[in-house]
Amino acid sequence: MSRSPGRKPENHKISRELFVLTYGALVAQLCKDYENDEDVNTCLDRMGYGIGVRLIDDFLARSAVKKCRSYSETADMIAQVAFKTYLGITPSVSCSSAAGNEFSLILDKNPLVDFVEELPAERASLCYCNLLCGVIRGALEMVHLEAEVTFLQDRLKGDAVTEIGITFLRKPEGRKHKRNK
Amino acid sequence: MSRSPGRKPENHKISRELFVLTYGALVAQLCKDYENDEDVNTCLDRMGYGIGVRLIDDFLARSAVKKCRSYSETADMIAQVAFKTYLGITPSVSCSSAAGNEFSLILDKNPLVDFVEELPAERASLCYCNLLCGVIRGALEMVHLEAEVTFLQDRLKGDAVTEIGITFLRKPEGRKHKRNK
Repeated sequence: MSRSPGRKPENHKISRELFVLTYGALVAQLCKDYENDEDVNTCLDRMGYGIGVRLIDDFLARSAVKKCRSYSETADMIAQVAFKTYLGITPSVSCSSAAGNEFSLILDKNPLVDFVEELPAERASLCYCNLLCGVIRGALEMVHLEAEVTFLQDRLKGDAVTEIGITFLRKPEGRKHKRNK
Repeated sequence: MSRSPGRKPENHKISRELFVLTYGALVAQLCKDYENDEDVNTCLDRMGYGIGVRLIDDFLARSAVKKCRSYSETADMIAQVAFKTYLGITPSVSCSSAAGNEFSLILDKNPLVDFVEELPAERASLCYCNLLCGVIRGALEMVHLEAEVTFLQDRLKGDAVTEIGITFLRKPEGRKHKRNK
């Protein structure tokens, strides 16, 4: 099941309902497979990583974006171009660290949970949308940006908003100073 | 994880790449879960059924379609409105029985396999897109039309086209003649 070489990106749009329901079926299947919420979360993140690694080509080809020159530009690109393109929403972005490497994407609306009312009591630790974290992490890695991506708040768990935290990991010192050698 | 009551359908469109890759992750997970291709096919069909049962509300609300007066109109509606809306493609339709209850949807292009080159040798009996059959079956059942829906041809298996067969099952005689009593 490998990707066809030379596939050109197309602009075909689809309604998201089928996607949202299919995603729900995926999460439900993983909940059958794993008793422990943490295992489901890990699995969703890993699946998302694999998707992000492949999706980045489509994203770069489609959006013809220029290279981001800062973490801040990258966070804006994820929110304003990637989320808009793939999920039809534009989260707001805020920088949450003085060091300038931690950002929050605030989703007032999360289309992935359109058909979900609330998590079942026995699944209180489930990060239902954890696939998204993996997608972001995988896509960033392909443009040589290592990041930790996790849900910080989740309306499904009673929080006021849904918040995804992205922490860009500093490049190792050795690499940073390579040019000074 | 039940549906929120009173949710209004929206027209937000999304790129299908994230959906296609997520679907691939779902199929891959089921292939991990079940050794036997038939079990994967059955599971995909069952999941699709559950999705179709829920998607039909969205479809009816969105498209404001009138009641179809024949199997032929129903088949056209599936191809021209449902497939177009949810997958961005319009299969061609042909009636394949003199009795007028068997139809074929011919997909020249199947977006769900965009990232799939070919099935692995050990998965030769896998109906990769079997979810679609379940979706159609589930949605039809909700408008009181029983049908068998299966893949008759599949380009992933070397066929020239991808063909989904829909056989509408005749209403039982008792019901048909109710008015004559």
